[in-house]
Amino acid sequence: MTETTEHGVERITDDQCWAFLESTDLGRLGVRAGDGVDIFPINYLVKDRVIYFGSAPGSKLADLTKHPLVAFEVDGVADRQRWSVVVRGTASRLSLQSEIEYAGIHHFHSQTPVDKWNYVRITPGGIGGRRFTTSRRVH
Amino acid sequence: MTETTEHGVERITDDQCWAFLESTDLGRLGVRAGDGVDIFPINYLVKDRVIYFGSAPGSKLADLTKHPLVAFEVDGVADRQRWSVVVRGTASRLSLQSEIEYAGIHHFHSQTPVDKWNYVRITPGGIGGRRFTTSRRVH
Repeated sequence: MTETTEHGVERITDDQCWAFLESTDLGRLGVRAGDGVDIFPINYLVKDRVIYFGSAPGSKLADLTKHPLVAFEVDGVADRQRWSVVVRGTASRLSLQSEIEYAGIHHFHSQTPVDKWNYVRITPGGIGGRRFTTSRRVH
Repeated sequence: MTETTEHGVERITDDQCWAFLESTDLGRLGVRAGDGVDIFPINYLVKDRVIYFGSAPGSKLADLTKHPLVAFEVDGVADRQRWSVVVRGTASRLSLQSEIEYAGIHHFHSQTPVDKWNYVRITPGGIGGRRFTTSRRVH
């Protein structure tokens, strides 16, 4: 199941990565911003191994169409070991109401009209996860 | 102290941002990677409003010299409200032993010889923090 690597870090399988991704609903989205990057905490959900989130109107995330290659990270603690999963993928805005309803992401913002939110899909290009067997050496 | 904005998000002051940054030691570093970005969980410390971390030999973070503009995010929960702080800044490798000792970052990896680790400083260019007053609308 796991491969022990140097520095007290174990790689975890893709299946375990998805299980961790589905176990929580808060992650961090890394996006290009000018010559550098920016990070946003986001609530998300996973359906059929695709990640969905909603972006408030006027958010900086509207820029995603210009730089759609993003990274998405979640982490947590399981069995007293910290884990982290990073997905690298392509962000695209959902344009069809049927896509939004299929994903179920509109339930996240049920207090406001659906059409005020932008909904975004991250189609994974790669996924990697690690479990940290010592507390101080995180990468 | 705080400014209430739309979507149940409050901006927090720079002083509060630094207090949060100093209250924890695990963050996520966003870096340029090819046409996109990558995110790494890192242990860090703060000294004099500069962020320091150690990078294991052979880590992908060695690329930082090519794209030094990074983003660094920490988040947590205080008074039952989730908070998030993002620093955008410039990463540079510490080259002097005196800098490494001044920062105190070598204590992070005391089981291995100091010279096996690369130590990196993030000099902040900007900082911003938010507190989320509702559970579902994170940005």
